[in-house]
Amino acid sequence: MGFPEVILAEGKTVEEIEHALKRLLRSDGLAIVSRLDPDRREELDLPDGVETEYDERARLLIARVPDYEPPYRGGRVAALAAGTSDLPYLRESTRILEALGVEVREWVDVGLAGPHRLFSTLRELREFRPHAVIAAAGMDGHLPVLVNALVDAPVIGLPTPVGYGVGGSGEAALLSMLQTCSPGLTVVNVGNGVGAAAAAIKIVRTVLREGGDD
Amino acid sequence: MGFPEVILAEGKTVEEIEHALKRLLRSDGLAIVSRLDPDRREELDLPDGVETEYDERARLLIARVPDYEPPYRGGRVAALAAGTSDLPYLRESTRILEALGVEVREWVDVGLAGPHRLFSTLRELREFRPHAVIAAAGMDGHLPVLVNALVDAPVIGLPTPVGYGVGGSGEAALLSMLQTCSPGLTVVNVGNGVGAAAAAIKIVRTVLREGGDD
Amino acid sequence: MGFPEVILAEGKTVEEIEHALKRLLRSDGLAIVSRLDPDRREELDLPDGVETEYDERARLLIARVPDYEPPYRGGRVAALAAGTSDLPYLRESTRILEALGVEVREWVDVGLAGPHRLFSTLRELREFRPHAVIAAAGMDGHLPVLVNALVDAPVIGLPTPVGYGVGGSGEAALLSMLQTCSPGLTVVNVGNGVGAAAAAIKIVRTVLREGGDD
Amino acid sequence: MGFPEVILAEGKTVEEIEHALKRLLRSDGLAIVSRLDPDRREELDLPDGVETEYDERARLLIARVPDYEPPYRGGRVAALAAGTSDLPYLRESTRILEALGVEVREWVDVGLAGPHRLFSTLRELREFRPHAVIAAAGMDGHLPVLVNALVDAPVIGLPTPVGYGVGGSGEAALLSMLQTCSPGLTVVNVGNGVGAAAAAIKIVRTVLREGGDD
Amino acid sequence: MGFPEVILAEGKTVEEIEHALKRLLRSDGLAIVSRLDPDRREELDLPDGVETEYDERARLLIARVPDYEPPYRGGRVAALAAGTSDLPYLRESTRILEALGVEVREWVDVGLAGPHRLFSTLRELREFRPHAVIAAAGMDGHLPVLVNALVDAPVIGLPTPVGYGVGGSGEAALLSMLQTCSPGLTVVNVGNGVGAAAAAIKIVRTVLREGGDD
Amino acid sequence: MGFPEVILAEGKTVEEIEHALKRLLRSDGLAIVSRLDPDRREELDLPDGVETEYDERARLLIARVPDYEPPYRGGRVAALAAGTSDLPYLRESTRILEALGVEVREWVDVGLAGPHRLFSTLRELREFRPHAVIAAAGMDGHLPVLVNALVDAPVIGLPTPVGYGVGGSGEAALLSMLQTCSPGLTVVNVGNGVGAAAAAIKIVRTVLREGGDD
Amino acid sequence: MGFPEVILAEGKTVEEIEHALKRLLRSDGLAIVSRLDPDRREELDLPDGVETEYDERARLLIARVPDYEPPYRGGRVAALAAGTSDLPYLRESTRILEALGVEVREWVDVGLAGPHRLFSTLRELREFRPHAVIAAAGMDGHLPVLVNALVDAPVIGLPTPVGYGVGGSGEAALLSMLQTCSPGLTVVNVGNGVGAAAAAIKIVRTVLREGGDD
Amino acid sequence: MGFPEVILAEGKTVEEIEHALKRLLRSDGLAIVSRLDPDRREELDLPDGVETEYDERARLLIARVPDYEPPYRGGRVAALAAGTSDLPYLRESTRILEALGVEVREWVDVGLAGPHRLFSTLRELREFRPHAVIAAAGMDGHLPVLVNALVDAPVIGLPTPVGYGVGGSGEAALLSMLQTCSPGLTVVNVGNGVGAAAAAIKIVRTVLREGGDD
Repeated sequence: MGFPEVILAEGKTVEEIEHALKRLLRSDGLAIVSRLDPDRREELDLPDGVETEYDERARLLIARVPDYEPPYRGGRVAALAAGTSDLPYLRESTRILEALGVEVREWVDVGLAGPHRLFSTLRELREFRPHAVIAAAGMDGHLPVLVNALVDAPVIGLPTPVGYGVGGSGEAALLSMLQTCSPGLTVVNVGNGVGAAAAAIKIVRTVLREGGDD
Repeated sequence: MGFPEVILAEGKTVEEIEHALKRLLRSDGLAIVSRLDPDRREELDLPDGVETEYDERARLLIARVPDYEPPYRGGRVAALAAGTSDLPYLRESTRILEALGVEVREWVDVGLAGPHRLFSTLRELREFRPHAVIAAAGMDGHLPVLVNALVDAPVIGLPTPVGYGVGGSGEAALLSMLQTCSPGLTVVNVGNGVGAAAAAIKIVRTVLREGGDD
Repeated sequence: MGFPEVILAEGKTVEEIEHALKRLLRSDGLAIVSRLDPDRREELDLPDGVETEYDERARLLIARVPDYEPPYRGGRVAALAAGTSDLPYLRESTRILEALGVEVREWVDVGLAGPHRLFSTLRELREFRPHAVIAAAGMDGHLPVLVNALVDAPVIGLPTPVGYGVGGSGEAALLSMLQTCSPGLTVVNVGNGVGAAAAAIKIVRTVLREGGDD
Repeated sequence: MGFPEVILAEGKTVEEIEHALKRLLRSDGLAIVSRLDPDRREELDLPDGVETEYDERARLLIARVPDYEPPYRGGRVAALAAGTSDLPYLRESTRILEALGVEVREWVDVGLAGPHRLFSTLRELREFRPHAVIAAAGMDGHLPVLVNALVDAPVIGLPTPVGYGVGGSGEAALLSMLQTCSPGLTVVNVGNGVGAAAAAIKIVRTVLREGGDD
Repeated sequence: MGFPEVILAEGKTVEEIEHALKRLLRSDGLAIVSRLDPDRREELDLPDGVETEYDERARLLIARVPDYEPPYRGGRVAALAAGTSDLPYLRESTRILEALGVEVREWVDVGLAGPHRLFSTLRELREFRPHAVIAAAGMDGHLPVLVNALVDAPVIGLPTPVGYGVGGSGEAALLSMLQTCSPGLTVVNVGNGVGAAAAAIKIVRTVLREGGDD
Repeated sequence: MGFPEVILAEGKTVEEIEHALKRLLRSDGLAIVSRLDPDRREELDLPDGVETEYDERARLLIARVPDYEPPYRGGRVAALAAGTSDLPYLRESTRILEALGVEVREWVDVGLAGPHRLFSTLRELREFRPHAVIAAAGMDGHLPVLVNALVDAPVIGLPTPVGYGVGGSGEAALLSMLQTCSPGLTVVNVGNGVGAAAAAIKIVRTVLREGGDD
Repeated sequence: MGFPEVILAEGKTVEEIEHALKRLLRSDGLAIVSRLDPDRREELDLPDGVETEYDERARLLIARVPDYEPPYRGGRVAALAAGTSDLPYLRESTRILEALGVEVREWVDVGLAGPHRLFSTLRELREFRPHAVIAAAGMDGHLPVLVNALVDAPVIGLPTPVGYGVGGSGEAALLSMLQTCSPGLTVVNVGNGVGAAAAAIKIVRTVLREGGDD
Repeated sequence: MGFPEVILAEGKTVEEIEHALKRLLRSDGLAIVSRLDPDRREELDLPDGVETEYDERARLLIARVPDYEPPYRGGRVAALAAGTSDLPYLRESTRILEALGVEVREWVDVGLAGPHRLFSTLRELREFRPHAVIAAAGMDGHLPVLVNALVDAPVIGLPTPVGYGVGGSGEAALLSMLQTCSPGLTVVNVGNGVGAAAAAIKIVRTVLREGGDD
């Protein structure tokens, strides 16, 4: 439905990944592999002439044929992370969005401790006029709730498995977002950066289809 | 942020509800009360000249001044319910959306048992070209996953507390949607029809702002 | 330990409550009954000359002999509620604190939606120079986290059973406070207003003992 | 009760496994070892003349004497996996069923994304006229629910520990199957391929006993 | 798929139930209403000439036209309950099975306390030669595990919400059945008597189709 | 209280273990170390003349001075394990009991599959006339429930972390025992062999004190 | 097994209770009904000459024939409750024990607040020389842990559903007892007073059988 | 807010840690790194002249410039651990407090087994007149509850992930503290030593500000 098939590397052999990659490059000109560890990336043997980009933190590989034309130029998505430890999950979203032609702007370390930083971020964010916002947070999951209350674009909450003690694998962050006191925040599952990117694409696509490419 | 304040009737006295209603009618021309039981609706004393609409199944009251101008004309949202028992929650969304000027089309009883019905629904839904889709389901929560896989508009999953035994208060439906095998589905909490409406409005507003009023 | 015994009305007969009340009035000059429903309050027969105060929302009865001398004069505690629905729990704390001589100041509806309101509240709160802060919130539990990040007095988080769907009986609020990204917030159990008051008294008492009665 | 004892390799020494294998080969002519890692399989020393088959993905070893006569010839079981990552669990079922003489047909990657593939699978499945169906799925667990709604043979849901975030160790898939909106689906525990095979055998055995060997 | 649609009375008005009943009587000659309270049964107005049967304990209504021909004559299902408190759930299964023409035999109070009773039950059960067994139990859920170990017909575990303390709403019984040490037991959700009946019908139907009507 | 202090090796250095061992040998003549891995046991340097016994499966070390006089001679405890995988936990109990002078008899693999074996075990067990019974089981936890129903000595259920899928770390076994349909079964936590031994000693001690050493 | 069958009134009609009562009076001379509400007790019609005792707090009825001879004279059980709200559960145990001839001594309100009271209780308790101790507690469940550490008789922890907020239905008390830092404490399920009595009887019976009737 | 920023080493590279350390040393003269493994501590390259202290058990590094002036001299905090296995978590608190100038006194192994030791500890603790108490405990979490009942300073409960079986990762300890029967105990999340230190600082700071430096 307009979002590329993503190859989940976990539970697949190198041969199975290569096979899927080649199939997708042939049919779509683009192939994305998620949760691919660096050592396994080394083992992959790709066809000549394919351009690749590998993000180690996000464990994401993007491969494309030279004349690949990304379908969502004109789309704009804002990406926020409460802290640097949330980046592996957020980058899974942003790398995919960029590969699809979306303009992405990223803000990191937008925490409660520094309200000045938060408010300057919100100002910049509004000026960017995003079609959608992805807000990643672990621990108490407050960032997406806060951003959703203060911004009128659609906000997708991406809980991350960052935390400690009870609820620290992302459950507290997820529950907090589900209980949001600012209506309109929606969420994907803990650490599901691919899902957040796909949700953002669905919005971008609808905006572009309806004439919104200003 | 462009979505009206909603008065939650639970935990408030009739006086407190009336007071809030009048304040919102004065400032916005529109006032919405959620989770308002029929007998308490009877007790409410509203100002003269105010138009009201009360949906008993959704326990929702909408009051507006005669010259209220809904802000989201041109918006289109599709609303689906797996069964009639999901309607109380879905209608909380659709009544609010309609009050705000959005064109809403509704499909009910779109289950797995009748695949023909499902496919005719999907065809009609695509022809409607919605800016967003709200899909409500309890039990196994399959409808939103299925619709998200087959439709390219943004889909908001609304789990409902319909079911039996273990996981039957909406947890199974929620988990199922969070684990969706079709990427891009986002969710709100169980029974949170207000939240689903607010999320849809954020998308509609972005589409309209970017020029999409065809 | 300096905090009065509180009679939990739940699970006790009227006779048992009266008996305990009289015992405490004789020994301490003060008797507090929590979770006492209005109709049962009516049935209680108290000794002549006893002054009583009953808070229906908090379901709390305070009885004292005329010459009762509250022990914590000079203490100052700030009390915040995210919304009015959190008041029954917060008032359980504040009524007890006031009965013990503590100066209490209360702020209600200090949510995320209105950042201006939040910041004016914080300014007033700092001017009050409280020895301790009790912050009550249900749903996403963000208020105590936010206040703890921005105020340097000890903050006691009081999660309340206010919310909807999964995590809506106070679990989400509790988990969110336990996962706080602003270090130093401590919590009591959901709806435990008596516990929050007792924790505040322990701090007040230590401050007063160490000479801090300015 | 007509289903062979299965030796669980986990928590047993090589000697204990060998001892049990020999005992079963002597008494039944067939011995099955589950959850046996490849390196431990190498260490096993089996009697001369025993035929073995080892499935690395399913970590399952089957050993039989040359003249072993499988008891369930004429039985037919269909096996479906939502994705390749579900195969380790499904193959535990199918390898055992084949060893017992049952005719097994397998369909993999029967997801929601491609409805055409799903419907061609269902057509082939009906033509096969299985006595029982085992449907394996992780994540949202939708495949068994869907198949149960559209096929009239008994369907055994086999949830697998495939997924991410909250509910991703098979709990979401299990709950979804337990909440099935299509009545008649039964389930075994997450990853319990041996149990699914045994349940299928009980049905096959009853069909064959009652004359159904066409 | 060969199992009649069952009308869930919960969440429906009397008119909606009557409407659905008439539709099913017209199309199938049989209509089943589950979870129907006695007082609401009284209010139902059925067409002349319709035969009805109402089981108060199971809260189940069965209505049929005079010339209704049950489709599963020749089918045999055994039904066991650990105690009388499990009967409301088991009877939901057995009443439906009988309406469909299946021969049902029932054993109640087949507990651990009296091993003699258990063994005489097992002997009778084997003589009955059932195509399927439904075993209902709450508390520790042991009966289905025990029966599955000692009988070679397919056994469907039906956990019931009978118990006390932690795990007493059927969770302990369900978990115990999912962890069964005797392979081959399958389960439906807690209290899902309709699902157990549907699962039994799927087996009966397969046996009958394959020639097993002795 | 008559039960020796047990040194938990987990989280202690070799020096800390040695130090505690020597202290206990001096004061009591007996020292017990639990959860001690084989390689760490090798590193321990014990005083000359101390007799030691190390059970690798139970990871338990017992050290005593030559003239140590065990205090509970005359005590009799029966120990049952549902399967061999439960032995590591049961042996933690039995090795300690033997070191304290209790006569222990052990039965392993007392499952449901072989009722003959179960009944011969029960007969032998009754002839042994134990003061207490420890029954260890994982998975569905049925053995302790069954034994408690059929034996009149006190039965201590010891759930073990043996199982698969949901509830497979001992939760299902624990819940099943807590929901026991045969009254009088008590339990300790999952895998707590030390606790089960201590509970048995409390009973043995009371029996012996009251004159029961036949 | 030496413990009388107890009739659980919940889920039974008055006729079914009467029938069971008469059967037990005929066979054993004693009949016990648990969880029997006062109004239903009024409706029961018992045979002439039967002596009855009804404890409203424990909702327990004991009926016996005039010449009933209690079997466990000489047995001694200590019963402790952390607070009066735990009494309904503890009394279920003690009323049954007394009916069976056991000498029961009871201590109530043995909390942490008054260490003097706790220590005088422990002294009296030791002088009583009980064969077993039942210790009931809700909330943090500390009493049984404390008593088990300081007394050498077998202690049975009886968690009660007394508490507030998260874990307040007895889960916290149960978990706390299962995690006891004083080895040897065993537990029954939350509120299972019948089970605690049965466990105590098993110990008493073993002591008496082995000669311990001093 | 008066508490230093703490660098969480988990999820950061050595370079990122060094960078943050230098930034904090420059701005505050003090830098704290938590959850830093010994081998990674070795890799860190710090500026000349910086004084460091590394606690291996707590995995905590404290670095300061030579003329750093700790801000909380005159503060007094008592620190208690139920056992040595709780020390890694408690020391995270105490090392930070000491670095900030607070006088810390520590008591370890303050269990229930030795009531004499407990009471001598409480006497010493009262003589120390702490501004706040941090009490760490795993398993049943009783120590903080007990101390809170017997001491009038504010007590912060620090649950630790020490235990076994169900609830043994700190959940039982946390729940037990949340259900405390002695009012006034507050808690931080499991293993959150940094949070406990920050909470203590907030109290110390308030006491010192209000004049309490005796």
